[in-house]
Amino acid sequence: MFKKILIANRGEIAVRIIRACKELDIKTVAVYSEADEHSLYTALADECYSIGEAPASKSYLNYEKILKIAEKAGVDAIHPGYGFLSENSKFAEECDNRNIEFIGPPIRAIELMGSKINAKKTMKKAGVPVLPGREEPIEDEQEAIKIAKEIGYPVIIKASAGGGGIGMSVANDESELVDTIQSTKSIAQSAFGDSTIFIEKYLEKPRHIEIQILADKHGNVIHLGDRECSIQRRHQKVIEEAPSPIMTPELREKMGEAAKIAAKCIDYYSAGTVEFLYNAGEFYFLEMNTRVQVEHPITEIITGVDIVKEQIKIAYGNKLPYEQKDITFNGHAIECRINAEDSVNDFIPSPGKIKHYRSPGGPGVRLDSGVYGGAEIPPYYDSMVAKLITFGKNREEAIVRMRRALSEYMVFGIISNIPFHKSVLEEQDFLDGNLSTHYIAEHEKLLHDKTLDYAVEIAYEEKRFIEKVFRDDKKTVALVGGLSAYITTLKNKDKKQYCPKENE
Amino acid sequence: MFKKILIANRGEIAVRIIRACKELDIKTVAVYSEADEHSLYTALADECYSIGEAPASKSYLNYEKILKIAEKAGVDAIHPGYGFLSENSKFAEECDNRNIEFIGPPIRAIELMGSKINAKKTMKKAGVPVLPGREEPIEDEQEAIKIAKEIGYPVIIKASAGGGGIGMSVANDESELVDTIQSTKSIAQSAFGDSTIFIEKYLEKPRHIEIQILADKHGNVIHLGDRECSIQRRHQKVIEEAPSPIMTPELREKMGEAAKIAAKCIDYYSAGTVEFLYNAGEFYFLEMNTRVQVEHPITEIITGVDIVKEQIKIAYGNKLPYEQKDITFNGHAIECRINAEDSVNDFIPSPGKIKHYRSPGGPGVRLDSGVYGGAEIPPYYDSMVAKLITFGKNREEAIVRMRRALSEYMVFGIISNIPFHKSVLEEQDFLDGNLSTHYIAEHEKLLHDKTLDYAVEIAYEEKRFIEKVFRDDKKTVALVGGLSAYITTLKNKDKKQYCPKENE
Repeated sequence: MFKKILIANRGEIAVRIIRACKELDIKTVAVYSEADEHSLYTALADECYSIGEAPASKSYLNYEKILKIAEKAGVDAIHPGYGFLSENSKFAEECDNRNIEFIGPPIRAIELMGSKINAKKTMKKAGVPVLPGREEPIEDEQEAIKIAKEIGYPVIIKASAGGGGIGMSVANDESELVDTIQSTKSIAQSAFGDSTIFIEKYLEKPRHIEIQILADKHGNVIHLGDRECSIQRRHQKVIEEAPSPIMTPELREKMGEAAKIAAKCIDYYSAGTVEFLYNAGEFYFLEMNTRVQVEHPITEIITGVDIVKEQIKIAYGNKLPYEQKDITFNGHAIECRINAEDSVNDFIPSPGKIKHYRSPGGPGVRLDSGVYGGAEIPPYYDSMVAKLITFGKNREEAIVRMRRALSEYMVFGIISNIPFHKSVLEEQDFLDGNLSTHYIAEHEKLLHDKTLDYAVEIAYEEKRFIEKVFRDDKKTVALVGGLSAYITTLKNKDKKQYCPKENE
Repeated sequence: MFKKILIANRGEIAVRIIRACKELDIKTVAVYSEADEHSLYTALADECYSIGEAPASKSYLNYEKILKIAEKAGVDAIHPGYGFLSENSKFAEECDNRNIEFIGPPIRAIELMGSKINAKKTMKKAGVPVLPGREEPIEDEQEAIKIAKEIGYPVIIKASAGGGGIGMSVANDESELVDTIQSTKSIAQSAFGDSTIFIEKYLEKPRHIEIQILADKHGNVIHLGDRECSIQRRHQKVIEEAPSPIMTPELREKMGEAAKIAAKCIDYYSAGTVEFLYNAGEFYFLEMNTRVQVEHPITEIITGVDIVKEQIKIAYGNKLPYEQKDITFNGHAIECRINAEDSVNDFIPSPGKIKHYRSPGGPGVRLDSGVYGGAEIPPYYDSMVAKLITFGKNREEAIVRMRRALSEYMVFGIISNIPFHKSVLEEQDFLDGNLSTHYIAEHEKLLHDKTLDYAVEIAYEEKRFIEKVFRDDKKTVALVGGLSAYITTLKNKDKKQYCPKENE
């Protein structure tokens, strides 16, 4: 097995990878920006190296520097986590050049799946269902209008190099289409340095359902079932669950087979995720993520497979220890992404210092966190601080456990989206499993009002508990005073529509 | 379902019961002694009542007071947890008199199993295997000598009312027997107010294996498989696992059936545990615990059954939602009891304030804790502060996860037995599953020396981390200085036999 791995990432996923390495008896090397020196993952790693200033472009994206450290520390392999360099084929290539194993898929697979047009073409050719549309770049307006007529409105215009919801727009008729093409092209150009766009059918109320794949370097491919990730805000997943509430063994078999074909047709190895849109009994290839996914834990729980450990073992050249028939699905798991953001104030990020941290526990609770009491959440990166995952024998038990665990979870000092999660967790359509990617937008008013109520309730609870925690401390008066002021602010807020519009 | 439950307990089990109640949408009432006012469970309960001074006799054992609060708060039921009033049939009766449901078994079952002689008699009659010996009180020396001759030495003399290892002594020959009888009688009299003793065959290297039972008020009884609890110090369990490393489906079936007979023959309902000694392919009834067990989480993990929730539902009169055939066993789980005690200093209790608390997380980790950063561990009760449980697809994965989780766990400010657990978790006999109730005594020297090494290593880690946590704080210098002094003390310790002798 590898002796030493560098983790080219930060936060909770760096912690997650360190955990896997410790269980495999592999030494870990952490790299940190100036903003992350005192973070949890640097405390847990065996060695730590500074890589520069806080902005990602000067640290976590600076792969020359990271590779120098890798060589200096004498690592066998680099795990890129998600985001940052994880889907950067150039970085994978540079690892290769230095004889350092990139823990991820073959370079060609990253490249192919990094272009939405090429990905779609490849999948269509292999027989994986794709959305109606043409798998060619749009050259001019006339061509766009022609294609839109063929497939019918509404249509969606997408940047081929896009991601995270940027560079997408929906057109409901010809005039909207004409209005949109140029602006999407220029957004694509400025965001990704590539103005290539294409058109496909727009589904109005699809579910986002994805299939987790594991494939080794010996041609073995298995799937680990599905995850439903329809609860999204601005194309960012917020709550995920496994299995999907609408999943049946037949549908899982069909989607699982499609995902395996997707992986096989690009000679894939490592962990990967094939994302589909699901609508009225049909599913369509959306994209493939050639890395470990934020929401991988819910699959780990219902299958018992440690995806990150398998990913490392695959990179080392091990054969998969499972065949498809060994994979069984037990119970139900839900993940809430705990973000440092103000859910009643347009979800603006809320970085700062965690003055007290009380984590949930007990039956059916898993917490993948990147923080501790006293930790600082820097403003430079995404605002996710932890993933709270609950599980039970069925969806209902996983949901009541999530409500219970959220009520135990206290991240005092910053504003988190815990009150928002509490609101969703009791909303009737959510409870009924009646989901689509527009769920949050469609329940905007209701969720905002409930979130406001929960924010007040939680602030009161914090006030009571903080008095216990800091009972002998001079800080108490100031802390409690701050909470009282915050409660007053919340109570003065109008219950009005505050959530942002989905901006597709 | 019940509307409101009073929890007649404290610490982690009070938290565990609150969690179950929240998931069942039941309000909770906590009672606390003066020492527990600021504890975690009082923060999580819906209502809290003071019940008096710190010593248990003046608070948690004062059932008149607890019952008055129960009536005042208008609860439907009382959950006694483990210890304290949980196996007190008089308390159960008083609940009954006040029309408050005691969440536990029938009064007669508590009474019968509270007497070791009666329990053994009852089980023998029902066909449950028991240790050779006579199920009658020993009247005089001559009778004792006669029985010992029949069953052969070594023999064990036990107080019928005994528990927790108190009132037991082993005799290897007639002279030891004669020496021991009177002293055991007087210990029994002073500890339990009952000098009744009996004799049975003493097994030299038995394993402690127990079966978890669930039975409802409608005559349905199922077992949830086995737990191995051989790693004991002074008859107190320290590490438990499920399943036992030696378990086979056939043995589990046999022991499970015996445990079900045990439950049925006393018309049992609620959760309960039938403890057996296992030796060379045979198993013998040891005792039955008529309450929830400390180590119940490992069974919850491998079966997916929430034992505390089921216990509450049974008390309410619900039928078991499972038949025996519905119970399957997945993976392996291990529990380490995290105690505030000094493992390199004769395991003396180490109460005090937790100045920083960093809990482990990630895949396959469950933490049932009664504390938080800033909490005070009072000196009045048992020293267990948390139960760290890990699980994986097999024993090996559960073990490596436990090692990893222990390395993340920091209870700074008190001395914990984490270094001791780390020592056991890498000892070869433990890894081989080569266990008996004498495991700790037999590995005394080795475990002590390794524990000392780990204590030093952990203190260094704490030093590094505490500097991060309190980086802007004036406290840092004093805290780090304290740790340096502690490291010096540890390093000056001789590596010699320090663990206490097993005192059977």
